Amino acid sequence: MSALQNDTLLRALARQPTDHAPIWLMRQAGRYLPEYTATRARAGSFLALAKNPALATEVTLQPLERFPLDAAILFSDILTVPDAMGLGLYFAEGEGPRFERPLRDEAAIAALSAPDPSAKLRYVLDAVREIRKALAGRVPLIGFSGSPYTLACYMIEGSGSDDFPALKKLLYARPELLHRILEVNARAVTDYLNAQIEAGAQAVMIFDTWGGNLSHAAYDEFSLGYSRRVIARLTKERDGRRVPSILFTKGGGQWLEAIAASGCDAVGLDWSVDAARARRLVGARVALQGNLDPGALFAPPEAVRKEARRVLDAFGAAPGHVFNLGHGISQHTPVESVAALVDEVLTYSRSQRTRTA
Amino acid sequence: MSALQNDTLLRALARQPTDHAPIWLMRQAGRYLPEYTATRARAGSFLALAKNPALATEVTLQPLERFPLDAAILFSDILTVPDAMGLGLYFAEGEGPRFERPLRDEAAIAALSAPDPSAKLRYVLDAVREIRKALAGRVPLIGFSGSPYTLACYMIEGSGSDDFPALKKLLYARPELLHRILEVNARAVTDYLNAQIEAGAQAVMIFDTWGGNLSHAAYDEFSLGYSRRVIARLTKERDGRRVPSILFTKGGGQWLEAIAASGCDAVGLDWSVDAARARRLVGARVALQGNLDPGALFAPPEAVRKEARRVLDAFGAAPGHVFNLGHGISQHTPVESVAALVDEVLTYSRSQRTRTA
Repeated sequence: MSALQNDTLLRALARQPTDHAPIWLMRQAGRYLPEYTATRARAGSFLALAKNPALATEVTLQPLERFPLDAAILFSDILTVPDAMGLGLYFAEGEGPRFERPLRDEAAIAALSAPDPSAKLRYVLDAVREIRKALAGRVPLIGFSGSPYTLACYMIEGSGSDDFPALKKLLYARPELLHRILEVNARAVTDYLNAQIEAGAQAVMIFDTWGGNLSHAAYDEFSLGYSRRVIARLTKERDGRRVPSILFTKGGGQWLEAIAASGCDAVGLDWSVDAARARRLVGARVALQGNLDPGALFAPPEAVRKEARRVLDAFGAAPGHVFNLGHGISQHTPVESVAALVDEVLTYSRSQRTRTA
Repeated sequence: MSALQNDTLLRALARQPTDHAPIWLMRQAGRYLPEYTATRARAGSFLALAKNPALATEVTLQPLERFPLDAAILFSDILTVPDAMGLGLYFAEGEGPRFERPLRDEAAIAALSAPDPSAKLRYVLDAVREIRKALAGRVPLIGFSGSPYTLACYMIEGSGSDDFPALKKLLYARPELLHRILEVNARAVTDYLNAQIEAGAQAVMIFDTWGGNLSHAAYDEFSLGYSRRVIARLTKERDGRRVPSILFTKGGGQWLEAIAASGCDAVGLDWSVDAARARRLVGARVALQGNLDPGALFAPPEAVRKEARRVLDAFGAAPGHVFNLGHGISQHTPVESVAALVDEVLTYSRSQRTRTA
């Protein structure tokens, strides 16, 4: 493997000084880029694209060709694991992900087992290896998975939802069945992330997209507890370097201290979180990643730059901040907004550090 | 007007002792009740039902016939105000609310003005009067409105949305135009709620359903600031009795202290909020309303009762708790879940008070 030329992300995740705030964007390889849309059209569908290592590599690198980002993130879907469990992931036209065989009875739940990633998820590991080769050490590659709870939401409901009635019914009526699913998911996510690390992922992120739909009492029991279990069993070092983990819970702003105590190296913040408060509360313990409102990118470049400076000011120049959005980038984002954002973050965070030094 | 026979709600909102935790449910007059569905079918549509004072009175009282609830809430829609502004509210089959003429340019924004509630919203005030008469003092009647910000979300976007791109674009690109809309909305909401109070509403609630989609920095500027302005100008007393105001921000758990300092008498909590923490933080200042996960009602009665006790234990028996859901009741809720919930809240909260006394 080539030596890493830009280790700003890994240094910031270890809360070491960097000359600027590293930046990458959740879903940075995506539909707002015309070149992505072109590759996806060649692949035929989103899933065909995700399952083809050569094309997944191509789209993973596309945003790096346009913008001086500090990391690549594996192009894949968060639902590859339940797909490998046999639930039959598909995408209906113009809709979100769906499963052909959601978990609807005890027999299906009892039969669930963690897939061997080297078999059913080999296309992901092949993509990780091919992306690492193509990156040739430019920037680190982030691997990822949905959290055990977020996977369970889709596995039980069969699709995204406003209120996840089937999931909630199971949680309140038969919590032991939900725990059984979450145990299998925790094992599957651990194996999956460790396989990504083995294949070359230099950092990993757990997306707990739906953890915020839980009550305060249920969040630790059904979501954070299982992410904690995954994190405890992750490979911590590879090729003599720490492989940091980032835990992102959308809507988790009230639980920052508990999330920061999960064993992760960094906490992802959505845009509702007061970054200055987060720094005070947990900034001595973990790095923080975030947290620009993705909606700010719908504004013209000057407004984007202003909002980027506001976010950087809220975090401050102390080590341990990775700039990102508070959620995945929207497909309707103008490309010039992203260019302005990345430029402003590099320039302004550099000037913050010069002023502070 | 008849004397109020059950003032448990008003006493709890004033943080005075009560023999049980009063309970009512957001959207308690709604589609989970077969008798509601029948009345709505007679009306022809949701809007026809909301605009017919006699039928609105009928459905407002329906849940009180089934369950010993401690309050009635006006049956209406949160978007009546922008409809009265001329935006043309309608409901497409199976979808949420939409506007025929959303605010899409500066001219439309400049032309916006607060409607006279005694003219364009008279059907609402007639319903308030008719409901008060029909209630004959059984329980107090709660009036309500969407918050200035939540109304603006729909007025700009034209419908509900996952990420409100048009709203966010305006907020970041042309904040002065959004402020102009919010100023008009604040005036309109103030006039509307005061007219409801004048017509007989004995408490009022402001629903800030979308405040939680704002960044920490933007929340006070675009949402809370305008709700504060409304609350400051509300009629505070009527017939010698305090008319309390309740402010509910879905996703506002991180901003509890600021919300509690808005001038409201009570803060509505969604189910992600730790009720015990909320009591510690702001319970000496305001009453608290909430916060059962509406998803808990999908479970069988015994599980519903258990979860109700958990919520009551988290709030504790000290004065100032109004039991409610953390969000509107789902149309898929079994009626027997609601019966079990109301019974358990009355019984268990009474026993809490006996134990404490």
